[in-house]
Amino acid sequence: MIASPIPGSLAMDLLEEINQIRIIDPHSHIPPEAPAAKSIDDLLSYHYFTELAHSLGMPKACLAEGYSARERCREILLYVSRMDNTAQYSWLMSILKTTLGYSRQALDPKDCDQLYDLSEKVYQAPGWENQSLELGPIDQVFLTNDFDDPLEGFDPARYVPCLRTDELVFHWQKPGVKERLARRTGVDVSDRKSLARALRELFQYFLRHGARACAISLPPGFHAQKVSEGDLNQEFSHQGASVGRSQGIFWEIATCCEEFGIPFDLMFGVNRDVFPLGVHQGRDLFDQRISLIQLAPLFNAFPTVKFPVSVLSSPQNSELVAYSWIFPNVIASGHWWYANIPSLIEQDLRSRLHGIPREKILGYYSDMYKLEFGPPKYLMFKQILARVLAEDYVAPGAMSRAQAISLAQDLLRNNAERIFPSK
Amino acid sequence: MIASPIPGSLAMDLLEEINQIRIIDPHSHIPPEAPAAKSIDDLLSYHYFTELAHSLGMPKACLAEGYSARERCREILLYVSRMDNTAQYSWLMSILKTTLGYSRQALDPKDCDQLYDLSEKVYQAPGWENQSLELGPIDQVFLTNDFDDPLEGFDPARYVPCLRTDELVFHWQKPGVKERLARRTGVDVSDRKSLARALRELFQYFLRHGARACAISLPPGFHAQKVSEGDLNQEFSHQGASVGRSQGIFWEIATCCEEFGIPFDLMFGVNRDVFPLGVHQGRDLFDQRISLIQLAPLFNAFPTVKFPVSVLSSPQNSELVAYSWIFPNVIASGHWWYANIPSLIEQDLRSRLHGIPREKILGYYSDMYKLEFGPPKYLMFKQILARVLAEDYVAPGAMSRAQAISLAQDLLRNNAERIFPSK
Amino acid sequence: MIASPIPGSLAMDLLEEINQIRIIDPHSHIPPEAPAAKSIDDLLSYHYFTELAHSLGMPKACLAEGYSARERCREILLYVSRMDNTAQYSWLMSILKTTLGYSRQALDPKDCDQLYDLSEKVYQAPGWENQSLELGPIDQVFLTNDFDDPLEGFDPARYVPCLRTDELVFHWQKPGVKERLARRTGVDVSDRKSLARALRELFQYFLRHGARACAISLPPGFHAQKVSEGDLNQEFSHQGASVGRSQGIFWEIATCCEEFGIPFDLMFGVNRDVFPLGVHQGRDLFDQRISLIQLAPLFNAFPTVKFPVSVLSSPQNSELVAYSWIFPNVIASGHWWYANIPSLIEQDLRSRLHGIPREKILGYYSDMYKLEFGPPKYLMFKQILARVLAEDYVAPGAMSRAQAISLAQDLLRNNAERIFPSK
Repeated sequence: MIASPIPGSLAMDLLEEINQIRIIDPHSHIPPEAPAAKSIDDLLSYHYFTELAHSLGMPKACLAEGYSARERCREILLYVSRMDNTAQYSWLMSILKTTLGYSRQALDPKDCDQLYDLSEKVYQAPGWENQSLELGPIDQVFLTNDFDDPLEGFDPARYVPCLRTDELVFHWQKPGVKERLARRTGVDVSDRKSLARALRELFQYFLRHGARACAISLPPGFHAQKVSEGDLNQEFSHQGASVGRSQGIFWEIATCCEEFGIPFDLMFGVNRDVFPLGVHQGRDLFDQRISLIQLAPLFNAFPTVKFPVSVLSSPQNSELVAYSWIFPNVIASGHWWYANIPSLIEQDLRSRLHGIPREKILGYYSDMYKLEFGPPKYLMFKQILARVLAEDYVAPGAMSRAQAISLAQDLLRNNAERIFPSK
Repeated sequence: MIASPIPGSLAMDLLEEINQIRIIDPHSHIPPEAPAAKSIDDLLSYHYFTELAHSLGMPKACLAEGYSARERCREILLYVSRMDNTAQYSWLMSILKTTLGYSRQALDPKDCDQLYDLSEKVYQAPGWENQSLELGPIDQVFLTNDFDDPLEGFDPARYVPCLRTDELVFHWQKPGVKERLARRTGVDVSDRKSLARALRELFQYFLRHGARACAISLPPGFHAQKVSEGDLNQEFSHQGASVGRSQGIFWEIATCCEEFGIPFDLMFGVNRDVFPLGVHQGRDLFDQRISLIQLAPLFNAFPTVKFPVSVLSSPQNSELVAYSWIFPNVIASGHWWYANIPSLIEQDLRSRLHGIPREKILGYYSDMYKLEFGPPKYLMFKQILARVLAEDYVAPGAMSRAQAISLAQDLLRNNAERIFPSK
Repeated sequence: MIASPIPGSLAMDLLEEINQIRIIDPHSHIPPEAPAAKSIDDLLSYHYFTELAHSLGMPKACLAEGYSARERCREILLYVSRMDNTAQYSWLMSILKTTLGYSRQALDPKDCDQLYDLSEKVYQAPGWENQSLELGPIDQVFLTNDFDDPLEGFDPARYVPCLRTDELVFHWQKPGVKERLARRTGVDVSDRKSLARALRELFQYFLRHGARACAISLPPGFHAQKVSEGDLNQEFSHQGASVGRSQGIFWEIATCCEEFGIPFDLMFGVNRDVFPLGVHQGRDLFDQRISLIQLAPLFNAFPTVKFPVSVLSSPQNSELVAYSWIFPNVIASGHWWYANIPSLIEQDLRSRLHGIPREKILGYYSDMYKLEFGPPKYLMFKQILARVLAEDYVAPGAMSRAQAISLAQDLLRNNAERIFPSK
């Protein structure tokens, strides 16, 4: 894999020990009713591959519903084989090797049918879900749940619910949102007071079903700000999107996190739909001109709420290190999306380790849609972690090997347990 | 040279193979009527040296026309010898060693006269132009041509014309621009329609003379935006600079790129004349507070036009990686100006390789004014590329040596051929 | 220490030579009447430890005046022992080892009493101040002096006064500032003319007492701009904070720097009091959305004033490299505050070395409040410098060892002497 340690190196020794750590993955998009892939079609349909293939010129036709899955795989693999320099390619090669025994040095698109058939056999065999997790090894995976998700039919000790609140905050004006909230909570929201009641119902529902976090992604232009009761009541009388209403609902959700004692994951900086002609989930980008100072009023107003914060680029990581270093309730969380490539992980991770107390770093999350991606994505992170621990700490004598492994345990497991405790 | 691989290392082995690749240089300022230096005066007058010398305190007197070339060299060398830590110094030392056999470890300004005399002899000997290119080895060099450049007297298969459009877009109001365009195209521009006719004449002229690209540098405050026919017509009735007119002309040029099927190089982020007292070409700086989202309307509106994009700093590179990864028509291009130093090239290149499909990366361009700078500037890039390929790909087993060399070929030659095809 | 060179490496060889260089430290907060610590309480009360401990959950009670120093140390050490991954922890461990012979691999908070007692004995012994400096070895330390500091009772050849002007520029409206200035200078400021007289009195006072620099920290929103005499006179009639008055006073101070020939240190980008509930000196953060172009009018208007500039993050460092490369009077200065961790120092230093003439780089300053922190903070910098010199210059053959050591001498001593000459 790209940038992995050299065999025989100190980093490789550390990696072998780090690979024993049983991981808690604090953010994913796993659908608990179908957590594992059924074939390589579920792997190749991951937006990382469809968007990169599209970026290389692949027409979108093969992504339409009803298109033959096998032919879609043939098409996508043609393009994926031309991006052998990317981190995403190395995730795929790692999966194919580990789960299907694929042993070529370079991906050959002519192997598609064979891989397709084999993947159906392997991935649909009994016990595959467990085996797939064990390749991590991953013990717990946090989910991303819509506010009206029933949260039933899975074990919340393995798949931990997390209340995703983007729709409530940013799409209140969209048809059905208000009604769906009313159905879930029994409260028809028309002002600040009814909003507060509905959200409390919602939080209680989620907590009864094992939820341990609330989450949202925020656009670059967002400023966290308390909205007065009067102003917020006004906002609920409008149609259409409204900055004030978004700010007010967001603030009320933070208030619920405070009351119910659960962390609020903030994924800061994504611009939705910058490339409207892109593939599904491949249309969002970012604007580097943001600052965490836009969220400072929130950090100040809710000192008991933990805010794991994710950012999209290295420049923003400089701020995240400083804000996590100063604010007791700000936690540096994972390596998100466009920042989730080895070169950026390495520099961001090093800065976090040099500047933030270890308990305040959530090392990594998979962000995966299918379990098969957990192991290679975590492996990429662990390889970089092993190199940084070897070069910056163990080789210079700043830490013993045991200390370094214990630091890795904090990053991969203990901190997630501490920050998102089971109730 | 700064940061070059260690003799005997895997990176050095790769570098030796990479050095065989015959380069296509997709951006330079070579004057085809005098492509090579006539003496070291042509080397030392490169703005990198005059501006750094001036920054160290050199008075500007020696840069005036009519000043003795030999004495100018003496003066500049005094200062250049005091910047032995810089990348620019190592380009010069590399040229002096390779072309003049200069063998000192450190530049001694007392050698000036000897170097001057020798350089006149070597550089003015028959065949020097070819020898100089062969040191790359460089097969093709793209030019930067004013819109009324005659484009004659050189071989466009070696020196490829490129239509530079800054004047038309940003200096329309300056005396003579409109008239020069009328002389070249026979069209007197007074509104959108006549602009469209003039630009089509211009593009046809350039294409008949072998042009393969259009190019522009954009200030940090620029937002790409379509301007309505009515508004643009209005703008042409004004005197003075106008944001709307610049946007309208720019958009019309992009339309021509679409119609004529040629790429549009965008060099984004330079602020002109920040230091008005600086030396010629040493007055421009940048403002990091920009985002590629300012250009997203362009990328969306012209899906068939390829946009090789250059940026000025690592923070902006994070965005460039993401935008090239998502937009099929955005290409990450070279390491521009203030970002063209080893430390920044290394981190920017690694991020591009980890996140962008290889075909969408134009590895490097020389930006040179004289051919002698092609070899050392490319060597700097190739040294870094060799180290990244060794450390991130070959040593970890992610690529074979042959795969890595093929990747280097894409970056140094094939992608330029693919992106800027000969017509 | 984190990221230090490996024993036996070329970098370690260079480090041993670099460690002989007698340092001039161009910025600190040393109180010359009590430059050294009296016990570990003076070490642990450094804001880096109190803010990081607070960020880990330490209540602020122990920081109140009157709290037992010994018990405060017990409390802080409990938290500090949990941040063994940070650069700050490694400074402390280095001090404890070097000055108190502490030899554990990891800090054990149970050792607190023993360390406390021993530190009182060692630090209060005669000659400790000299010994402490000799561990650097540091010859001169620049101070940070309020405008009405008496500047007496210390040797200005060792502790060099520096006029800090934040209060005059940004807190003019606060009770007592105007009066204190009147007391120091005999001038009651009511308009531009009286301001000019008062500042000249002030500068003369400072220069008579050995001052060699003027300094200020600037918030991200600051734009340097000349204010007309009339407008500034108007501003002095207002109460309350005023942007125009701040700009006007700032400009007048720069004018004094020009007249009296002393450099003006600019520390650009800090937002004060972002976290009002934080510990003392642990409340300030930054906003990355700034540009040095905000200061360009200053650099242009005062070509003979040297401006050593510090920035707070790597993104801003890209600009600082470019501005120092172009403007003769801009100097890249140290690694400030949140940027003072090994990972960021390394990338910022490499960029500066590759792009800025060596004479225009002030390598490092301690920013310390007690002398004990000079040696470990400088050691961190020297370790990184040694690795960069080894990897980027000596190993590739771009410099001999002697050249590399001479470069280190410029960064650690000579440039400070050149830029801040004794009068």
